[in-house]
Amino acid sequence: MVANRPIGVALLGLGNVGGGVVKLLHDNAAAIEARLGARIEVRTIVVRDPDKGQRVVDVDRSLLSTDFDRAICRDDIDIVCELMGGTTDAKRAVLAAIGAGKHVVTANKALLAEHGAEVFGAADAAGVDVYYEAAVCGGVPIIRVLREGLASDRVEALWGIVNGTSNYILSTMTESGRPFAEILKEAQALGYAEADPTLDIGGGDAAHKLAILVNLCFSMSVDVTAIAKDGIDGIDPIDLEYAEKFGYVVKPLVIARDHGHAIEARVHPALVPANWLLADVSGAKNAVYVQSYALGPSMYYGAGAGMLPTAMSVVSDIIEIGRNVFAHAAGAARPRPRPETPRRLLPLAEVRTKYYLRFGVLDKPGVLGQLMTVLGRHDVSIAQVVQAARSDGPVWVVVLTHDAKEGDVRAALAEIDTLPIVADRTRVIRIASGDPSKGAKS
Amino acid sequence: MVANRPIGVALLGLGNVGGGVVKLLHDNAAAIEARLGARIEVRTIVVRDPDKGQRVVDVDRSLLSTDFDRAICRDDIDIVCELMGGTTDAKRAVLAAIGAGKHVVTANKALLAEHGAEVFGAADAAGVDVYYEAAVCGGVPIIRVLREGLASDRVEALWGIVNGTSNYILSTMTESGRPFAEILKEAQALGYAEADPTLDIGGGDAAHKLAILVNLCFSMSVDVTAIAKDGIDGIDPIDLEYAEKFGYVVKPLVIARDHGHAIEARVHPALVPANWLLADVSGAKNAVYVQSYALGPSMYYGAGAGMLPTAMSVVSDIIEIGRNVFAHAAGAARPRPRPETPRRLLPLAEVRTKYYLRFGVLDKPGVLGQLMTVLGRHDVSIAQVVQAARSDGPVWVVVLTHDAKEGDVRAALAEIDTLPIVADRTRVIRIASGDPSKGAKS
Repeated sequence: MVANRPIGVALLGLGNVGGGVVKLLHDNAAAIEARLGARIEVRTIVVRDPDKGQRVVDVDRSLLSTDFDRAICRDDIDIVCELMGGTTDAKRAVLAAIGAGKHVVTANKALLAEHGAEVFGAADAAGVDVYYEAAVCGGVPIIRVLREGLASDRVEALWGIVNGTSNYILSTMTESGRPFAEILKEAQALGYAEADPTLDIGGGDAAHKLAILVNLCFSMSVDVTAIAKDGIDGIDPIDLEYAEKFGYVVKPLVIARDHGHAIEARVHPALVPANWLLADVSGAKNAVYVQSYALGPSMYYGAGAGMLPTAMSVVSDIIEIGRNVFAHAAGAARPRPRPETPRRLLPLAEVRTKYYLRFGVLDKPGVLGQLMTVLGRHDVSIAQVVQAARSDGPVWVVVLTHDAKEGDVRAALAEIDTLPIVADRTRVIRIASGDPSKGAKS
Repeated sequence: MVANRPIGVALLGLGNVGGGVVKLLHDNAAAIEARLGARIEVRTIVVRDPDKGQRVVDVDRSLLSTDFDRAICRDDIDIVCELMGGTTDAKRAVLAAIGAGKHVVTANKALLAEHGAEVFGAADAAGVDVYYEAAVCGGVPIIRVLREGLASDRVEALWGIVNGTSNYILSTMTESGRPFAEILKEAQALGYAEADPTLDIGGGDAAHKLAILVNLCFSMSVDVTAIAKDGIDGIDPIDLEYAEKFGYVVKPLVIARDHGHAIEARVHPALVPANWLLADVSGAKNAVYVQSYALGPSMYYGAGAGMLPTAMSVVSDIIEIGRNVFAHAAGAARPRPRPETPRRLLPLAEVRTKYYLRFGVLDKPGVLGQLMTVLGRHDVSIAQVVQAARSDGPVWVVVLTHDAKEGDVRAALAEIDTLPIVADRTRVIRIASGDPSKGAKS
């Protein structure tokens, strides 16, 4: 049955993902060969230090080199897999590969979020494929689903849990009631969080992925630095407890919504109604909940990181490019952007959503009235209030609002936080809304 | 940007799905045209009665005809969409279309489950594409996910809720505590269930879909009549209540598992642990939970039926074939089967799983001992027992077993149901097991 010549692959990088690619190509060799009708051969692997001792997988020393320019230009290479990370060398390598007429597979979300237009423009000009399934949600085939599965549909909104480290930390905080700093330290010791966790817990990694999703769903290039983002480091265990009392679970979300004239895109922890499917996506798992015109709600769930899940996406991309190579159809499956209607990113101040507000106030009569008066004056209307007596400090007043404008809420809080009755900076967590309820009759 | 000639489509059938295709092509025309780089034109629609009054959508009367042989052979048709259903005319039409060199999109699960080998064989010989995303789980792109997203992976097992009618009925029974017959009648009145609901509630529809999934995941043609299936009509509200007490929800499942030498495939309602994501898939929604070697657990959720969701899958297939047509790459994306290792369907008697057993016995001392003795003698070991006093008849003894062989359980029950202490036929519901827990650290 195997009639085609092998597909030649150059790997740039042999860390966790690169090692996973080598392992998966070995472990699933027979199935992959049968499905592609050809073998996939890793013919060269570019690494920083070929003499490094311990690696994720054993590879033939003769495959290793440090010269990526040479590796990219080899005649026997069809596909260059950029698995180095970063945006300097990686960008140079990807553009060089495209320039040399090679197809590219990359897992590099930062590169695509920051330089996607340049990379895809170069690929279009050269008539080569750039696939990037592994760049968003690791092994979850969300790129393929949006690009091909929902090719005839129109995405209206999406809610995603796309950073496994943040989800792991918040899930563990929720289960254990222990504070952020403690769980983070543990996660670092276990290897679930980086030594410098800023990109994960601060929302930067999620913003990169959201920029890629927004580009795919709404044909709009987003300046990733313009995406509003809050990290999960401001969440206290007490907020998770209150959330539960009100029927919510706190999750690290990315949210995007098509408003016609503008696209809303934001990254922050949010109170998610406990009856949403996303509320049950725990640990390091990822999921994207999509609301689209024809299909309605749909959800895609799985491992967002890890050696083999991420490698799985990379190798599935290699197989698809391989099929294109044999069919002389490179570039055919790349999405053509819709006619670019100029659309702006909706400024955060204009976003409307519900809010969880926790005020730390002095235990005096009339305090609640003062808070409510200021909120009301700024058009922030209240859905629920709970006041908790405490022996050891200010009283907490927890408020859930109806839909309000972010700008109004911020203006109200700026005023409230200067009141003499307020003892503690007000904590704000947005509440996820929209209509992705689980179990609705289709 | 639009450079390509239009793609010509013939629709066979203008019921719910056909009407949805016409509507979606209209509503999303601009986005679809931009993504394909060409217009999609429905050039002829074959119906039984062109003069029928009320239709799902308004179409130009001149597009309608009754002659599908002529429609299929027209030079201006690239893709034939078979949306008639049934396996007689539909099979003839699909094979005729393939014979005429047309690509085919079909939503017909029965056709593919029963005659898939013949249809795909003909398509291979003719070098045309046959796409069928809409045949399984309506709008959920599960076929594309398994064929392309997980192309480099190896599916080990799957658990699916693939029949929306059954899921709707069981969900409503669970919420309301009302009996099957009553909910079915309501569902029929609301149009959620067919006048003849046998195929849905008896598991036949789910078995068709499971046969297609098994073929795709395990490269194995299954005789659909050989798939063991139980319907949901034997479920009593009391069983749903007990299930809840034990921490389960009853769901209409399809289950498949790779045992190496054999493939397990079965269709039946099952007790699903309440902490599985599948337990939260309610109403008419569908979902498939996949366990694969590299990715681990992943889940795909959405509308399994309905006019626009199903049409969405059909039109996405049309777009993909359109891309292939322009790239002269037809057939390239069709999965090549793995070298066919002869594998058998695991006989139901050899399946091992856990069981929920509800015995109706006389309220006498020693009864429990007698039941346990027979079960033990047949190697069925017990995890939990609950005995419920009743004022109005026999006592119920509810047993949850450890993993046991179906053959052993059936032998034990055959013996038990003849005991003088047994007043009622024993009810049996299998318990879903394996390891698709939600929230596990990846």
